[in-house]
Amino acid sequence: MAGETTITLTGNLVDDPELRFTTAGAAVAKFRVASTPRTFDRQTNEWRDGESLFLTCSVWRQAAENAAESLTRGMRVIVTGRLKQRTYDDREGVKRTVFELDVEDVGPSLLRATATVTKAGHHKAPQQPQQPAADPWTTQAPAAPQYAAEPPF
Amino acid sequence: MAGETTITLTGNLVDDPELRFTTAGAAVAKFRVASTPRTFDRQTNEWRDGESLFLTCSVWRQAAENAAESLTRGMRVIVTGRLKQRTYDDREGVKRTVFELDVEDVGPSLLRATATVTKAGHHKAPQQPQQPAADPWTTQAPAAPQYAAEPPF
Amino acid sequence: MAGETTITLTGNLVDDPELRFTTAGAAVAKFRVASTPRTFDRQTNEWRDGESLFLTCSVWRQAAENAAESLTRGMRVIVTGRLKQRTYDDREGVKRTVFELDVEDVGPSLLRATATVTKAGHHKAPQQPQQPAADPWTTQAPAAPQYAAEPPF
Amino acid sequence: MAGETTITLTGNLVDDPELRFTTAGAAVAKFRVASTPRTFDRQTNEWRDGESLFLTCSVWRQAAENAAESLTRGMRVIVTGRLKQRTYDDREGVKRTVFELDVEDVGPSLLRATATVTKAGHHKAPQQPQQPAADPWTTQAPAAPQYAAEPPF
Repeated sequence: MAGETTITLTGNLVDDPELRFTTAGAAVAKFRVASTPRTFDRQTNEWRDGESLFLTCSVWRQAAENAAESLTRGMRVIVTGRLKQRTYDDREGVKRTVFELDVEDVGPSLLRATATVTKAGHHKAPQQPQQPAADPWTTQAPAAPQYAAEPPF
Repeated sequence: MAGETTITLTGNLVDDPELRFTTAGAAVAKFRVASTPRTFDRQTNEWRDGESLFLTCSVWRQAAENAAESLTRGMRVIVTGRLKQRTYDDREGVKRTVFELDVEDVGPSLLRATATVTKAGHHKAPQQPQQPAADPWTTQAPAAPQYAAEPPF
Repeated sequence: MAGETTITLTGNLVDDPELRFTTAGAAVAKFRVASTPRTFDRQTNEWRDGESLFLTCSVWRQAAENAAESLTRGMRVIVTGRLKQRTYDDREGVKRTVFELDVEDVGPSLLRATATVTKAGHHKAPQQPQQPAADPWTTQAPAAPQYAAEPPF
Repeated sequence: MAGETTITLTGNLVDDPELRFTTAGAAVAKFRVASTPRTFDRQTNEWRDGESLFLTCSVWRQAAENAAESLTRGMRVIVTGRLKQRTYDDREGVKRTVFELDVEDVGPSLLRATATVTKAGHHKAPQQPQQPAADPWTTQAPAAPQYAAEPPF
């Protein structure tokens, strides 16, 4: 691929990751990250929180299962991937735009935590750049009906 | 600042930049960039366009005037800055979220164009990291009424 | 800070992280990451490894201790931070330039592993952007003698 | 490609770009960028320059000619691309490592300058992600002799 907008997000999981499977059996996990910048206030000589950035992240295959098993709500993570935009009509017929992060790699942050890392057993194939075969969330996103044949749940 | 989500966008201007001034006299320009990734299709042995990413970019002060003077619709640009999110209630009272790029630096791309560059005359102060003093677009974004005292137009 | 060159690296640890302490008691860990890009070869229809990028990463304070405790040689990690350059004269008096990554956040990758994450107990202060108070490695880097008063070991 | 380390650099050209041609006729331009971060000193209440980061950037084909025509020493630029590392033995047989930026896009900064942009006339093919066919600088880099058949000058 070329001309993609890569982005690295550090922040906290708003919820537990949600794991689903496509009809073809591919795992996919979604999770939402809140990233909060801080500004140094020269008047008060203190750091202040800025407005948080919330982004939904999708991770596929083996990494999806690993993320769902390892990450929980509130945990700080590092996510890197491609910023994507998806447009769809909502129930009222209003055009809506969603920004999402198509995950290339993700892990728990070690800024304030330690981690015991275990090699995942059943990685079948050398991990490829995350390339969705089908989108199990498409029931909520009518704009991409071509994927919706058999949503995972 | 710390913990910010930096992003670099390459793509084409959807429209001419729009230049405004805050009541305090600070220039600010907005422009919209469409960034289109391409995927190599191994079946057809060809590059194919993916779905475009559209982001509104805000640039301040001297750089705003320079951008408004130099950039026009259709032009390819490189923009780097901070990805921001702003939430507001629309006219129907529905909560809406907008993603924007707070520009740190911007320039025309030389991939398919040449540029004659001229030092801008009236840069008063050493350029600081773009930090909005007031948002002249806030009339459209009721969520940030603290800025809306005297919108530029 | 402003005008910094941020970078995100994904790759494998070449060695175990090395943990040291400054004379002031600040922990700092160094580790080396090998990041290997892959190219799709259209002739053979296969992915091929490109030349690896090796970067030494420095992480400070609580995160240094967490990294040293959690990460081991061979493990895949995600590192984000600032790309820095340091110039020094080697033993033969030849000027040398080293590139390093000043870590803002680091974690084990979940692409092919799972992690059990435990909140670190003794984080004294709200984590600040990594800002070295003193460089315990400076014995190897004569170019920065101002730091070398009491190297950690 | 996948697993690459993308990087965006903003800074000033140390020299004029140097344009060469491979024996196959492909244009390639090299230029060196100095990027200087600034830190806000809370004691003195002033911004202070940090240590500069110097990186050599390579740009290919049409973009190389455009860059050579448009950019001059001292000019501020935005460069985005892939961070690469090349290892070679110098004249004394000492192994040396060079970091370089393989340019995906480049343009003059509009922070303190304006630009008059002109579409380049002779772009033969849709611009592809910069992929070097041969390295005309390899006479200086004995580690890659396979390219050195007929260096451009």
